[in-house]
Amino acid sequence: MEESVRPLGAEEQRVWRNFVRLHEKLSGRLARTLLAESSLSAADFAVLVNLTDVPEGRRRYQDLARALEWEKSRISHHIARMAGRGLVVREDCLEDARGAFVVITEQGRAAVEAAAPLHGEAVRALFLDHVTPSEVRTLEGLSARVIAKLDEDAP
Amino acid sequence: MEESVRPLGAEEQRVWRNFVRLHEKLSGRLARTLLAESSLSAADFAVLVNLTDVPEGRRRYQDLARALEWEKSRISHHIARMAGRGLVVREDCLEDARGAFVVITEQGRAAVEAAAPLHGEAVRALFLDHVTPSEVRTLEGLSARVIAKLDEDAP
Repeated sequence: MEESVRPLGAEEQRVWRNFVRLHEKLSGRLARTLLAESSLSAADFAVLVNLTDVPEGRRRYQDLARALEWEKSRISHHIARMAGRGLVVREDCLEDARGAFVVITEQGRAAVEAAAPLHGEAVRALFLDHVTPSEVRTLEGLSARVIAKLDEDAP
Repeated sequence: MEESVRPLGAEEQRVWRNFVRLHEKLSGRLARTLLAESSLSAADFAVLVNLTDVPEGRRRYQDLARALEWEKSRISHHIARMAGRGLVVREDCLEDARGAFVVITEQGRAAVEAAAPLHGEAVRALFLDHVTPSEVRTLEGLSARVIAKLDEDAP
């Protein structure tokens, strides 16, 4: 059987684009809400939430990059800017230069705690209020399966 | 009834994060594939696909920004860079300075046509091959509903 490499057909394109559009619209709207009502961008918020998830609010650059699916250069630039605003600090690792940590500050914790309720309300108003429990189950099932597949094949 | 503003609960958080993670992982992997196998970034590809969708490959900046859900500054910077690489040209509108157009070039068309099959194969291998027809229907239904809701409430 010969497999040809071909562009997406009309229906495949519709499915894919709808999914991308849904995410772009939700994240765009959410980012604007956050920025208008807190001092954080969506990227700041994502970094801070990731740091509050772990003990001592402290995570290696490369783990943070992997968790956020960001390129290395994006993470270093963004962390440098957040450090300049006092939200995080960089902690070098004496044994291993590649192993530097990012640590959330008290100010970072206060900022993410102030923003979390606004973010929560926005996620509800924009998304969760409009999906049924059965749709949520389907979405969770397919997300888990596709994510596991992607992690398995990770380069 | 008093409504309190509160952060996401554990289950809401799981649903939301899975959805975001699915998108981040898919788009990150897809972007790396595109960049490795074509001359285009994911952002370039999105712009070019949007332009090939319309007659004469010509679209106003603000329409393109809306379609991609990008901020104005992001679209102008990105289009300037793509114009520098010969993929698009900017066409000013004599009557209305705000009404400038972005037009795809022959080189832009050639680049998107070369990348489309790679993009298509990657979308299949990373995503479409792992979802069932029934999941696709559910995803389409909820995407359409949430997108319509967001467009209705657009600021």
